[in-house]
Amino acid sequence: MPIMNRHLVGFRCIRCDARYPVADYPEGCPRCLAEAFPASVVPVYDESLPPLRLDGPRNGMRRFADRLPYGDYDSLGEGDTPLVALPRLAGELGLESLHLKLESANPTGSHKDRMSAQFVARAKDRGAPAVIAASSGNAGTSLAAYAGLAGMPCTIVTTRAISPPWRRALVMSGAEIIYAEDSLERWVIVRRKVREEGYASATNYLDPPVGSDAFGVEGYKTLGYELAEDEEAAAADVVVVPTARGDLIWGIYHGWSEAIAAQRVATMPRLVAAEPFPRLQDVMQGADLRGHFPGQTSLVSIAGATVTYQAFEAVRRSGGTAVAVTQGAAEADQLALARAGLYLELSSVAPLTALRRLMDQPGSTIRRAVLIATSHGYKEPAS
Amino acid sequence: MPIMNRHLVGFRCIRCDARYPVADYPEGCPRCLAEAFPASVVPVYDESLPPLRLDGPRNGMRRFADRLPYGDYDSLGEGDTPLVALPRLAGELGLESLHLKLESANPTGSHKDRMSAQFVARAKDRGAPAVIAASSGNAGTSLAAYAGLAGMPCTIVTTRAISPPWRRALVMSGAEIIYAEDSLERWVIVRRKVREEGYASATNYLDPPVGSDAFGVEGYKTLGYELAEDEEAAAADVVVVPTARGDLIWGIYHGWSEAIAAQRVATMPRLVAAEPFPRLQDVMQGADLRGHFPGQTSLVSIAGATVTYQAFEAVRRSGGTAVAVTQGAAEADQLALARAGLYLELSSVAPLTALRRLMDQPGSTIRRAVLIATSHGYKEPAS
Ligand SMILES: [Zn+2]
Ligand SMILES: [Zn+2]
Repeated sequence: MPIMNRHLVGFRCIRCDARYPVADYPEGCPRCLAEAFPASVVPVYDESLPPLRLDGPRNGMRRFADRLPYGDYDSLGEGDTPLVALPRLAGELGLESLHLKLESANPTGSHKDRMSAQFVARAKDRGAPAVIAASSGNAGTSLAAYAGLAGMPCTIVTTRAISPPWRRALVMSGAEIIYAEDSLERWVIVRRKVREEGYASATNYLDPPVGSDAFGVEGYKTLGYELAEDEEAAAADVVVVPTARGDLIWGIYHGWSEAIAAQRVATMPRLVAAEPFPRLQDVMQGADLRGHFPGQTSLVSIAGATVTYQAFEAVRRSGGTAVAVTQGAAEADQLALARAGLYLELSSVAPLTALRRLMDQPGSTIRRAVLIATSHGYKEPAS
Repeated sequence: MPIMNRHLVGFRCIRCDARYPVADYPEGCPRCLAEAFPASVVPVYDESLPPLRLDGPRNGMRRFADRLPYGDYDSLGEGDTPLVALPRLAGELGLESLHLKLESANPTGSHKDRMSAQFVARAKDRGAPAVIAASSGNAGTSLAAYAGLAGMPCTIVTTRAISPPWRRALVMSGAEIIYAEDSLERWVIVRRKVREEGYASATNYLDPPVGSDAFGVEGYKTLGYELAEDEEAAAADVVVVPTARGDLIWGIYHGWSEAIAAQRVATMPRLVAAEPFPRLQDVMQGADLRGHFPGQTSLVSIAGATVTYQAFEAVRRSGGTAVAVTQGAAEADQLALARAGLYLELSSVAPLTALRRLMDQPGSTIRRAVLIATSHGYKEPAS
């Protein structure tokens, strides 16, 4: 059985700072929810939490076990993904350095594994009858894999529009697959399973949503650690992250903040959210983040009409911004990266496209950049 | 430009022990070839080669740079893949421990990256006009990626039967794709490009073949290092490897031998070649390894009608064996592993199927096993 970190003492709302006991908060902070402003909670550890040790032997996310909610958990070897230097592309862009964090090298081929590992450990420890997610992509296939590893039943709620490569991975994983009529009906089904049957949901079902399960999102802070401990990445002016609901960009912010608190690095790069149409970009310019921002895109892994408070805060607190990219420009960059040796999912190249847009702005001072590539090209239909 | 290891002083035939100067031997040992017994050559380093340092910080294959032909090379972050513990499956099989080396976590999703990185460095250093491979799978997509990274032209000779996911990856990589009439014509085209145009070929075109390019195959010894330095893997009774021409199993043998020479480990596990129909298995029982062993299979990554001397020697010298698995049994194991969280290409699960066969033999003493999983399930057609 997974063993909870004995230093975990509760949760804290990232918006109103309210404190809560150790439990599950599938709808985020109850106080903020009552104010109709859903917001995420994050784990709080006691003062005797071991100090953050960076630069240790790379051994995947488990090397940070003593700072995760579940230090003892079923692992497929997630984390410690390569940071690839791209000097030729840096030269073309007029940058001093350009690095790409290759999260597709995680066990199921995406960053989601960092979340799934912690989320499944929590679900198993608290005796949930099953885990569930509304997903038509990497979140679902990753969750199904970690549930399989842990021997837990898994249900994925998707739609008929799911890409065949992801569908095949789900089918073979043995997960129960429920086909909803449309994207919105998925949330209704998940909510019912959570409220009536006690399922543990990896993905949030509110509207407006909060981030994913707080135990799971905590796994993403290890990506912040890995960047902060790397000399090249730590010197970056910007880290550009494919963003929908912002679990990942929040995790990077959170992990990097801890590296600053540990005096390992002095400052944080600006965190830039790359998105497929203006959502967070509108919010940064004053729109209510609880609104709907509909748009069509084939950048399926970062689609969706909503923004979260955690995504907004990660960008705002780091002095970053949000950049919407067009599908056509992303497609060109998908080809450019494939020709440079990196065959990535379309959503994963959006950071390069966003970086180009930022550098085209008059007065850009960006000299060093890190791109987060979340998933590989084999997730997309091939014929 | 890549920089050749200054300790590299020549090559040595693994069959007749003949020594050759540093150069390219696309047809293996000239003396053995003249005897109509093609055999691989391996790099020879001088006495001042730095000692093998295991247990160092994991940083991918580059941490072994001082023992590779090209210590300075263009890297996508290959190597240092996860070793996943599978305690539940071990229990079902009656094993004390079972581990799976997840080579699908390499940058292009297969073990081939260890070879491609060294091979492309050599081709670039010697000024080859292009790199080429006959491949309808991972070797081709990996080579195309590393060629793209290095800015070298790449040609892949395949057939119309190539699986759509691999074809799409190739198309997007910008590699020139030549469709041969059939598998055999591929070798004719490659041979012509090598002999007439000086292309550097990653794959061998002789019949009977030798292993792949000797600079490239040397990259695989790092997988042997990574296993030998891990306490769990080092204690294994068997390491089971998907095998066709044996570049990988030879590399594991070679790296492990060096770990023994460095007194890091005392013994080597038996290396077991998992194959899709009897080839090496027949050779182990006395058949001439230069013969043809035709068979049909959907384990495409380890198909082919031939055996190599290096595969035979890796198995023989380690006291191992070869086990042919049926397609149906492999398909069942593909599902079993997917349900345990590991969604793998069919050829990559053959080691589990072979292990079951070995354990079913009367008097089996296998208690601890390591499986090598070379590639993930997204390489296969999804619909
Ligand atoms: Zn609150
Ligand atoms: Zn010879």
